[in-house]
Amino acid sequence: MRVYADHGSTTPVDPRVVAAMLPYFSETFGNASSLHAWGQSAREAVDTAREQVARAIRCAPAEVVFTSGATESDNFAVGGAALGNEDRGRHAVVSAVEHHAVLEPCRFLESRGVEVTYIRVDRTGRVDPDDVRRALRDDTVLVSVMHANNELGTVQAIAEIGRMVRERGILMHSDAAQSVGILPVDVNALRVDLLSVSAHKRYGPKGVGALYVRKGARLQRVQHGGAHERNRRAGTENVSGIVGFGEALRLAAELMDTEAERLRAFSHRLRGALRAIPGAHLNGDPVDGLPGTVSVSFEGTDSESLLMALDLRGIAASSGSACTSGSLEPSHVLRAVGLPPDLAKGTVRFSLGRGTAEADVEYLTQVVPEVVATLRR
Amino acid sequence: MRVYADHGSTTPVDPRVVAAMLPYFSETFGNASSLHAWGQSAREAVDTAREQVARAIRCAPAEVVFTSGATESDNFAVGGAALGNEDRGRHAVVSAVEHHAVLEPCRFLESRGVEVTYIRVDRTGRVDPDDVRRALRDDTVLVSVMHANNELGTVQAIAEIGRMVRERGILMHSDAAQSVGILPVDVNALRVDLLSVSAHKRYGPKGVGALYVRKGARLQRVQHGGAHERNRRAGTENVSGIVGFGEALRLAAELMDTEAERLRAFSHRLRGALRAIPGAHLNGDPVDGLPGTVSVSFEGTDSESLLMALDLRGIAASSGSACTSGSLEPSHVLRAVGLPPDLAKGTVRFSLGRGTAEADVEYLTQVVPEVVATLRR
Repeated sequence: MRVYADHGSTTPVDPRVVAAMLPYFSETFGNASSLHAWGQSAREAVDTAREQVARAIRCAPAEVVFTSGATESDNFAVGGAALGNEDRGRHAVVSAVEHHAVLEPCRFLESRGVEVTYIRVDRTGRVDPDDVRRALRDDTVLVSVMHANNELGTVQAIAEIGRMVRERGILMHSDAAQSVGILPVDVNALRVDLLSVSAHKRYGPKGVGALYVRKGARLQRVQHGGAHERNRRAGTENVSGIVGFGEALRLAAELMDTEAERLRAFSHRLRGALRAIPGAHLNGDPVDGLPGTVSVSFEGTDSESLLMALDLRGIAASSGSACTSGSLEPSHVLRAVGLPPDLAKGTVRFSLGRGTAEADVEYLTQVVPEVVATLRR
Repeated sequence: MRVYADHGSTTPVDPRVVAAMLPYFSETFGNASSLHAWGQSAREAVDTAREQVARAIRCAPAEVVFTSGATESDNFAVGGAALGNEDRGRHAVVSAVEHHAVLEPCRFLESRGVEVTYIRVDRTGRVDPDDVRRALRDDTVLVSVMHANNELGTVQAIAEIGRMVRERGILMHSDAAQSVGILPVDVNALRVDLLSVSAHKRYGPKGVGALYVRKGARLQRVQHGGAHERNRRAGTENVSGIVGFGEALRLAAELMDTEAERLRAFSHRLRGALRAIPGAHLNGDPVDGLPGTVSVSFEGTDSESLLMALDLRGIAASSGSACTSGSLEPSHVLRAVGLPPDLAKGTVRFSLGRGTAEADVEYLTQVVPEVVATLRR
């Protein structure tokens, strides 16, 4: 038995997505910026995908900028907002539980004289909108709060935060890499100016993503070169990847309601089984979290041993984010929610997805308690 | 009859490359940074591709940093060298015929107080190494001269330039997007510290490339986030794209000698036919250029009409680079080689490649003279 319970790290590309991509490798292979017939066929495919992505987040196609993935999108949002608004100020506000792709660009900006305020979260990982309000200053140019946290699954009150941030004329960014395609995402309802989207977290290919840039938002481009993407992001368009991304989000929208319900039921069952393990503590928001994401801490264990033992039993899970999986330190997210060190070090995230079957959940509910018990012995 | 003569803009993915990539979409789909079995299988594939890319340019695998393409690689080289050496100086030297992916980051740096010296070229597009020598200063931190020019096919004396630049302790970068896989590229023989490589210019997928970073080179990372690529470039590895890139360069090395010879013979024949057209002028270095690249200017025509007329006859060619194909101005490269404006505006680049057959060349030699004659009437 092999159970992949790490969909938060990445997902398999849906075979329908691969099928959509295939003609764009060797047949319709043109450079979408070329004016001849080969180029125009590629351009049409990119345009169709742009409409699909726009539809998924309810924006205009012209507001979608394709990137190499959510990390680039986050870097683009943070760096581009700072560069594009230097005349207004040099202060940014971000939550303490942002992905490294937001936090690390902030650290870089701090080394260049930009001030950054990090907003604390409660025990479930939630940002209090009032804390954001109090952090806003006359020289604040950007607020970045992620939609759904990758480690805990906690969903933030983006609409409430976005409303007050945008009232002040400050750019509002949200990293929605984990939520687009499994939770409803509407850039107008969320009141964001910038939103990061990933393909490979939603059964699309790796190496492609997008940044939603609201029309009129003052954002400077950060990857310079040719005039691609309406002069906002240089580099030959990754046509096959973009086509796959569009198809992945189209499919996700079609499946979202049934899939979210299915994953919530699976998570509920998994949480029940985990809660029954002595010394187990569930993290995040158990009610309104990201469907399929379950974070749990076990007293008297450590996540490295847990993950290795699970791996030997055919189960893929993760501690924190795959992006920092080499590190043995508890993640910044677990520290931010105030988890005691002995619990933080025994934390595992299970993330279920489209490939998860009932039998997989059954296997997890059987094997995880055994593994925890064996390790404690 | 349809003839794709725009391989300098992009190439079809070789079916053998697509076959190598396919298992990495839906089967071996793990995140290469995950520690479990799914992740480790992906990691192994990335490692193999890294060895293939390293072999193609004769460096150590650890010196290869995967990126989203040559534009990112160029931005990384220019921006990373400037940021990583601020204590040494704020001056860069680049040739006037670099790709926009080098020139535009330089313009951005100029807006931030970095001085940039642009080196002139001769009528064939060649940089005189002595001009580079004279431009070097005590505060120079980077020299960037491309290996083979994308518009003219002119190959630069990188080894000679690299030797003197590196003697002075200055980082030497070369954009080799057009040359890797069709001309021998050895980072030690070329004496470069940084080298940009593209997959889609050599029958690999779009959206992936690499930057060679010589061990010990002082380069700051520019895409921040997770600890991917030994902490040098954040973002989930594009596993299938990287696998395709490695396979594409492996194949290219295998085919290089016969392919270069074949393309040189085709170019020779095409040049002969073009030279016979009244008022036609060949650009670039007719002897030592990039195999398959032929740039020609026709008196009394304009490239937009030429390309449209060729497109109607089933022929794909380009003026300048695809990255700026919307522009009607003669390119910076044609201006730099001192082409008179009336010739510059009638310039077309034909770039032949692996899919070009003898019949295609025959068709070009027949149709191009007809199209030029018709347009002039």
